[in-house]
Amino acid sequence: MSVFDAADSIALSIQEVFDLSLRVLKGAGLSDAHARAVARVITAGERDECASHGLYRLPGCVMTIRSGKLSPDAEPGIVDASPALVRADARFGYSLLAFERAAPLLVEKAKAVGVAALAITNCFHFSALWPEIEHLTEQGVAALAMTPSHAWVAPAGGRKGLLGTNPLAFGWPRPGPHPYVFDFATSAIARGDLALHEIAGQPIPEGWGVDAEGRPTTDARAALDGAMLTFGGHKGSALSTMIELLAGPLIGDMTSRESMAFDAGAQAAPCHGELILAFDPAMLGGPDPAANAARAEALFAAFADQGARLPSERRYAARARSLARGVRTPRPLYERILALGF
Amino acid sequence: MSVFDAADSIALSIQEVFDLSLRVLKGAGLSDAHARAVARVITAGERDECASHGLYRLPGCVMTIRSGKLSPDAEPGIVDASPALVRADARFGYSLLAFERAAPLLVEKAKAVGVAALAITNCFHFSALWPEIEHLTEQGVAALAMTPSHAWVAPAGGRKGLLGTNPLAFGWPRPGPHPYVFDFATSAIARGDLALHEIAGQPIPEGWGVDAEGRPTTDARAALDGAMLTFGGHKGSALSTMIELLAGPLIGDMTSRESMAFDAGAQAAPCHGELILAFDPAMLGGPDPAANAARAEALFAAFADQGARLPSERRYAARARSLARGVRTPRPLYERILALGF
Repeated sequence: MSVFDAADSIALSIQEVFDLSLRVLKGAGLSDAHARAVARVITAGERDECASHGLYRLPGCVMTIRSGKLSPDAEPGIVDASPALVRADARFGYSLLAFERAAPLLVEKAKAVGVAALAITNCFHFSALWPEIEHLTEQGVAALAMTPSHAWVAPAGGRKGLLGTNPLAFGWPRPGPHPYVFDFATSAIARGDLALHEIAGQPIPEGWGVDAEGRPTTDARAALDGAMLTFGGHKGSALSTMIELLAGPLIGDMTSRESMAFDAGAQAAPCHGELILAFDPAMLGGPDPAANAARAEALFAAFADQGARLPSERRYAARARSLARGVRTPRPLYERILALGF
Repeated sequence: MSVFDAADSIALSIQEVFDLSLRVLKGAGLSDAHARAVARVITAGERDECASHGLYRLPGCVMTIRSGKLSPDAEPGIVDASPALVRADARFGYSLLAFERAAPLLVEKAKAVGVAALAITNCFHFSALWPEIEHLTEQGVAALAMTPSHAWVAPAGGRKGLLGTNPLAFGWPRPGPHPYVFDFATSAIARGDLALHEIAGQPIPEGWGVDAEGRPTTDARAALDGAMLTFGGHKGSALSTMIELLAGPLIGDMTSRESMAFDAGAQAAPCHGELILAFDPAMLGGPDPAANAARAEALFAAFADQGARLPSERRYAARARSLARGVRTPRPLYERILALGF
């Protein structure tokens, strides 16, 4: 069930979501290839009822395209750098086309040597990572993806934005229709949640942020002016730092702080790098892949046995509903998108 | 400063810690090569004032060696499986010798192709992962290591032990004497902390565990009888699950639940697999490695600028003290080790 009141929402088919997205993105100036790559991910977000990664993103995409920072027709430069490494220079286009162009080679390498890395650099990023992870698990590999973002998050013991919201996503291929997938920000919450609390005049829970003096705060505005915190205390902070290093300096791209400076207030999508690792269970797992797959399935079954949910289960349920019945999007958002004029 | 009262502690030099460890381990039946590998790590733990990974471990090692499950003189089987993959079959010996034997090949591969994996299987595990991570960063590569353990930890939304305490460790090479290193359990706390609280009759903080019915508890005994929780809620639970999969089924070895069943109450060290990834910044980072290293250093400097500590800083400070002045170990522990009779 959609969270939106049906009376104030618009019914759209999945195809209509895609077509609308494509029209807006091309209208704003993206090349056909880039627009299709971005529209596919927006459609997946809407389909899975991840509203924050669906049509809601279109106005921000238009702003990014018009910022003059993004290259709207960049053809990614794919380099077969070693038996285990693919480089994709996005040349300041959106990351998604670089991913699409490079993914087949990443999978091929993982299957040949067991583990392989895809380093995407110089890319603008706006999407969740799970669509990429799902794409890879569909080819039979496990995958891990991470990116920095902008320096809104204080490290444990600190009081100023330094780390990004730094998402980490992982997937494991399963025999059924859906892989095991998680995708989470290493910040305690998404930055948009702070803004929503401020607008609603609601206090935020402890642990979400600190004020400009580094004191714990339950005031959303104070946290927006101060810094967000990571999830999980010093462990989450360490994990976020790892993501800064692996998806930044390791692959020759910017940290979240550098990315924020590069944006210079333009409020475009963050520009930085992305690291994706792919692992082939058949190559890594030794002589009995079926036994290994069964081990993983036994683990998942034990979640269900004790009433625990696997990550993404809600998303898959939403997908089934959307594919059967289409989606509903809030009328104000729909009208805002139409008002973009494309 | 050591946490121990000097009046009730024994002063030892680093060399004496190593010699004592070696004597006990060989006396209990470990081969010279295994005993040296384990003694080096125990010495590193004592030196860095990680008392829980120092001499304290010796009685448990003796119990593991005598359990009949561990092979005390297994020669690890190292296989050069692909340009990016080293397999090390520990053949039911301790993991450390397998790591030592395989690490040079792992580093060589990472430097040749950018990213490489070491899959250690059939190994008994007792040590922290940071000594291995430090060893790798000394060779100039970044590294990530993980293992399952025993199924003491409930997944988010669950109520029974299923996941292990599943440590994750990461390191980044730095120009100075010390790398950036973190090493944390994905459980909210170490299992030993629960036992210590029970002995002291102290309540445990909320979020550490649930009782046998899955209810949150502040009673240490109830949590020991129920299940521990992961750090960081559903995000920590997802990360722990990833570790189960990558260091278990992916490499053809046991999950934490299988490892616990394999132990069958013997209380030996957990037997399972370990996955270690190594990344070469020079190969992955493009044309200007010095600029990338400077980016990472700027990130670390920004921690200090806002008064935040990097992980391991306490450990490095302890190391400097220990190397200068030796260590102190509690007299009861020292006497317990002597009473083992070796």
